[in-house]
Amino acid sequence: MKLPPLVPVSEVRALLESILVRPETVSIPLDEASGKTLAEPITADRDGPPYDRVMMDGYALRAKDSKHGGFELTGTSVAGSALAKLGNEPGVAVEVMTGAILPVGADAVVPYEWTVREGSRIKLLEGFAVEQDQFIHFQGSDYKDGDVLTEGGTSIGPVETAIAATCGHLTVKVSRPPKIAILSTGDELVPISETPKEHQLRQSNASAIQSTLALAGFPPEYSSHLTDEAKTEAERLTACISSHEITVISGGVSKGTRDWIPGALDHCAKRLFHGVAQSPGKPFGVWTAGDRTIFALPGNPVSTIVGATRWVVPFLQARTSGIWPTPPKILPSDNVENRTEMTRFHPVRLIEGNKAEPVKIRNSGDFANLVATNGILEIPPNSVKIEPSTPLPYFPWTP
Amino acid sequence: MKLPPLVPVSEVRALLESILVRPETVSIPLDEASGKTLAEPITADRDGPPYDRVMMDGYALRAKDSKHGGFELTGTSVAGSALAKLGNEPGVAVEVMTGAILPVGADAVVPYEWTVREGSRIKLLEGFAVEQDQFIHFQGSDYKDGDVLTEGGTSIGPVETAIAATCGHLTVKVSRPPKIAILSTGDELVPISETPKEHQLRQSNASAIQSTLALAGFPPEYSSHLTDEAKTEAERLTACISSHEITVISGGVSKGTRDWIPGALDHCAKRLFHGVAQSPGKPFGVWTAGDRTIFALPGNPVSTIVGATRWVVPFLQARTSGIWPTPPKILPSDNVENRTEMTRFHPVRLIEGNKAEPVKIRNSGDFANLVATNGILEIPPNSVKIEPSTPLPYFPWTP
Repeated sequence: MKLPPLVPVSEVRALLESILVRPETVSIPLDEASGKTLAEPITADRDGPPYDRVMMDGYALRAKDSKHGGFELTGTSVAGSALAKLGNEPGVAVEVMTGAILPVGADAVVPYEWTVREGSRIKLLEGFAVEQDQFIHFQGSDYKDGDVLTEGGTSIGPVETAIAATCGHLTVKVSRPPKIAILSTGDELVPISETPKEHQLRQSNASAIQSTLALAGFPPEYSSHLTDEAKTEAERLTACISSHEITVISGGVSKGTRDWIPGALDHCAKRLFHGVAQSPGKPFGVWTAGDRTIFALPGNPVSTIVGATRWVVPFLQARTSGIWPTPPKILPSDNVENRTEMTRFHPVRLIEGNKAEPVKIRNSGDFANLVATNGILEIPPNSVKIEPSTPLPYFPWTP
Repeated sequence: MKLPPLVPVSEVRALLESILVRPETVSIPLDEASGKTLAEPITADRDGPPYDRVMMDGYALRAKDSKHGGFELTGTSVAGSALAKLGNEPGVAVEVMTGAILPVGADAVVPYEWTVREGSRIKLLEGFAVEQDQFIHFQGSDYKDGDVLTEGGTSIGPVETAIAATCGHLTVKVSRPPKIAILSTGDELVPISETPKEHQLRQSNASAIQSTLALAGFPPEYSSHLTDEAKTEAERLTACISSHEITVISGGVSKGTRDWIPGALDHCAKRLFHGVAQSPGKPFGVWTAGDRTIFALPGNPVSTIVGATRWVVPFLQARTSGIWPTPPKILPSDNVENRTEMTRFHPVRLIEGNKAEPVKIRNSGDFANLVATNGILEIPPNSVKIEPSTPLPYFPWTP
């Protein structure tokens, strides 16, 4: 099978965006939401803070009374106490704790450290002056009731989780995760549990894809292996596509005599593209069937993990959040070059200062070559010399 | 309650390392292992590659025969075919596919692109010369049977998963995850599902801690809230500690009149330290009870998430892998300073080029102030001026 003209890497994103189907949203418990993407904004259901909040352990009083030199304690208000009241008589104070609601009538808080206390009398220490509003975190000074605190499309981390809790969300809306299947191919491959014969290998590509997607927050629900017998296996391929929104295939997509996948896909799906000007992973292709998407990755181990990391994960992220993710750019540790017409994805190790050190891969036939690498650096085609001061897009194996 | 002399940040790690208890190991399925830490090395159970492997689709032949100009095809060997044989007669070739075992007697592979074919005859195109060993990936050239491919202590990503699969591991050994409990405190806090009264807030610290630990791969199994009634709640605290290896408490650890946690912990556990020269989070303390560890984080929201990110997560990682993790160092986007004697943890946003832009936090009383931040930068004490060329330790909210 001959590949059609290669699609430049710079055009693949737009092609993939053209087939994005946004999933419906579902509500999930807040304590299972971390790492997922918010499908709705979170809005404040009250002012933040909701009351004038005491910021120090100490005494709430009227600033102007401090000219009298001393205060008489009339009560205590801790966090969680209902609203206390400062009497109208001059020189009174209420003992307050951080987080408490400011007593009515008070306009300043004086920390313990500024005072000496004798019984119910407190005196301001030499050198401290009380200013109105000091150590008060005023109602609504952070945000107002109804303000959007976190936009939809945000990845849910501890800050977003805490904000959702503050606003009373026991559940949050996220995109329904896609049903994903992985299919590996190749008659030389035997299951992990078997002892391979001399000319056989164990299946490892499916495990690499499973791990890549699971770590990105998209655990696949199905994984199987297809033999190279196109006639009997095409039916299984079609069934898998019809029952999964995303099918990721590794192997059988090049131009070898046994590479039956593109032909079978052309039969049951629509080809978006096949063949990308990238190395490794040139025979990469994508097909669609209604709202189903099929990624066909070359079966070479390094091509497989590069394809899953560089294309499948960002596609799934964009499908979830509606925004194609922008990869971080980091600096290479040394000059890099790529005199070919293909975009090169070079395995790198992160070193001191978050620089990317290119790791020499002797061949792309075995995952062992990638030990101690952290991801890939994208080196544009026709790059005679790129200086270490030029940041390049970086795609980590583990996002 | 008065804090003892503050422990410098530079000494906290050694104190925490002194109480590390390494957990036993358990076997888990490979497809659930991603993100966890290998507790054993993975060794090769055969050479890599296990046979002389064909690297291109084309023809296997004897290099010295190429002087005859043409070859007669005598068979085909694809990946998964058993060992083929190249006849002894000069000028014979076997059609081979990438990944196939090299036929006995062949010493070079010629790619399709170098040849023209007529029936069973192939001819080398003008300008191509065949060299012995070309396009052969020799047995054992990547690694030998028995070699360690991945060390114990490695975090399991797609590469490690694929290597484990290649070596026949349906399960891998990892450290048994700790049983973790979260306890929040504070009478001003009501459950997320309730509508707070004017002077109340919803519990959000526990959610922030839960998310931080879950995203780091340590999902807590228990979360509850303690009131400020020391007498009735100390018993619940003790019961929680005895049934969880790690207890993370937020709030009640400072010197306010209601801060009963340190006293209760002193009663049932041994104080490792209480009070760290850090801002925010000065009243942070750690206690131990046998092999149990109790982290007491200040209840201020920013102090809580900083404590969980800067101390609890690295402790759990070190407990799992045996190695205290080294944080990445990244560059501040501008001059930073810290003229105090306390280490400062400044919330930052990651910007272009992976630089850390300090984000102004108006106060540490609400998580909403941390929206759009990615983590904290550690600024040493007594730093008059740190230039943007000086990398500083960075702790992301989401590792």
